[in-house]
Amino acid sequence: MTTQPGAQMRSDIAAQPAVLDAALRRRSEIAEVAAAIERRGPRFALLAARGTSDHAALYAKYLIEVLLALPAGLASPSTTTLYGAEPDLADVLFVTVSQSGGSPDLVEATQAARRRGALTVAVTNTPDSPLGAAAELSIDIGAGPELAVAATKTYTASLIALYLLVDAVRGGAGEPVAGIGELAERTLSDAAGPVRDAVDRYRFADRLVFTGRGYSSATAAEAALKLAETSYLAARAYSGADLLHGPVAAIDAETGVVAVTSAGRGGEAMREVVSTVRSRGADVVAVGSASADMDAGLRIDVPRTAEEVAPILEILPLQLLALDLALARGGDPDRPRGLTKVTRTR
Amino acid sequence: MTTQPGAQMRSDIAAQPAVLDAALRRRSEIAEVAAAIERRGPRFALLAARGTSDHAALYAKYLIEVLLALPAGLASPSTTTLYGAEPDLADVLFVTVSQSGGSPDLVEATQAARRRGALTVAVTNTPDSPLGAAAELSIDIGAGPELAVAATKTYTASLIALYLLVDAVRGGAGEPVAGIGELAERTLSDAAGPVRDAVDRYRFADRLVFTGRGYSSATAAEAALKLAETSYLAARAYSGADLLHGPVAAIDAETGVVAVTSAGRGGEAMREVVSTVRSRGADVVAVGSASADMDAGLRIDVPRTAEEVAPILEILPLQLLALDLALARGGDPDRPRGLTKVTRTR
Repeated sequence: MTTQPGAQMRSDIAAQPAVLDAALRRRSEIAEVAAAIERRGPRFALLAARGTSDHAALYAKYLIEVLLALPAGLASPSTTTLYGAEPDLADVLFVTVSQSGGSPDLVEATQAARRRGALTVAVTNTPDSPLGAAAELSIDIGAGPELAVAATKTYTASLIALYLLVDAVRGGAGEPVAGIGELAERTLSDAAGPVRDAVDRYRFADRLVFTGRGYSSATAAEAALKLAETSYLAARAYSGADLLHGPVAAIDAETGVVAVTSAGRGGEAMREVVSTVRSRGADVVAVGSASADMDAGLRIDVPRTAEEVAPILEILPLQLLALDLALARGGDPDRPRGLTKVTRTR
Repeated sequence: MTTQPGAQMRSDIAAQPAVLDAALRRRSEIAEVAAAIERRGPRFALLAARGTSDHAALYAKYLIEVLLALPAGLASPSTTTLYGAEPDLADVLFVTVSQSGGSPDLVEATQAARRRGALTVAVTNTPDSPLGAAAELSIDIGAGPELAVAATKTYTASLIALYLLVDAVRGGAGEPVAGIGELAERTLSDAAGPVRDAVDRYRFADRLVFTGRGYSSATAAEAALKLAETSYLAARAYSGADLLHGPVAAIDAETGVVAVTSAGRGGEAMREVVSTVRSRGADVVAVGSASADMDAGLRIDVPRTAEEVAPILEILPLQLLALDLALARGGDPDRPRGLTKVTRTR
């Protein structure tokens, strides 16, 4: 039996509306974890993850800082696993994000954090995993088996689980994500045409830069990683602020810039970034609910939501782009050479 | 009057041994800042920076976590400047790294952090800058005017200042950096030949990946940025652990991998990374004091030091590589198109 190249990744991408709806139905489970967090009243948050999940953690860092007013940072597991650091983690919320729940370094970092007094929460697609066992609390993102090697539905499932968690901690009832499944469905169907145009544009591209600000920094980072993994493109991601600080030097007429621009303060702050790269001759594709306002050569619109949930939708057309560009360039994203789903590093 | 292309950057690179020696002479000033930190006894550290300085901050994050056993995170200034987050920062050490001291978003984030109770420390090459004025304490990295647009000597000057600060907080007297100026001199002169070979190797390269683990992750990130800024190469950086987790899929015989491998636990953990990318046919250049032990096509040796100070030396050959590769490819790193030294974003 043969399968179409990319069929697995396409099926995972298409599953996301249903996966997001299912997440909403697990809100009460997530609210229990949120209640436990509230009871402990952490003063700081640390998040640990690898690869795609690291971008979900970056999104959660913004949520925690802005919506919970808690200082938060991305933890480097290696400070524990390589160097044996033993920080005092009383009052610390330690969140690990891992679809497999099997990365030995995350398990070890979680065990160490728990020993040092942190409240540990595992956000995983495999709750009966070593990571689920290591953490005091755990959230099942319930994305179902992800058979494609490039993570897509586990990414958005992690985003919505993290959003529902943070929203519940602040006493919300998930209103900003009501109807998210239907919005995701619409995003995917509206994106089909513009993504085809973007594939034509990038078929021969050597250099792509992804950029976004605020919550959407996570989208830019994840999209660049997805392109790098599936299309063998050396795509880089920068926050819009970092891009203007230096790397804009390397932006010219031969650079494709994908600007993630959703309605809200992050998207507003991207205007200057887009006009600067345009003035340097770059080809700009704007993706997001504010894309219509941007000076771009191609726009991929996304339904408007509250800014803090926009990353859940913004990534969808970019996953399609990674898939279809890989196919257009003769690759098979379901068989990238050497991609494994569990990190074995320590 | 005409100047040689890259003359300014070359002169900044060559100044580093003297800059590092001068930093050692400011140890007592730095120790005063360290004493103030000790008196406040912070429980958590946040670091904020942009671009090259962000990599100095990443290095400091490892130092703080491992040597001080304090949890630490990289702050996103935009959570304050775009979204108005107001976290409780009592017991927080908030360190900003900025050569110019003029980035408005860092100044605003520092002012906000100070208002919210953090102990604020500015690490800057321009102490009488808005950032120096905004922070409660400040450290002058004393690198002298940096005329080239790509930051080099301000990077290593920031690293050593941050090292001396953390070392003084733990009661050290700077022993691991004794003689660092002379070691830097040796690193630069030993590197001349191997860097020439690396330039020949990468002259026609499209895709370079930089990787390191632990402390050396900062070196990999900074080297990739330097190449991207000066040579218009879409260089990406990954921690060795993240690389094996996914992006290794895109590593093949057409990819150049620069592996930062210094003696110590980080370098030891890189062995698996190097052998994996080699088995995929990648061309590997190993840089660092453990490079002789690596299965690499080219090795750039660096004098051995304590692992936690290796990043100060490891970056030197990579700065030379960025400069000489830019020249070989017909560019002028002193005139990259559009690079400004101060971020104006908010």
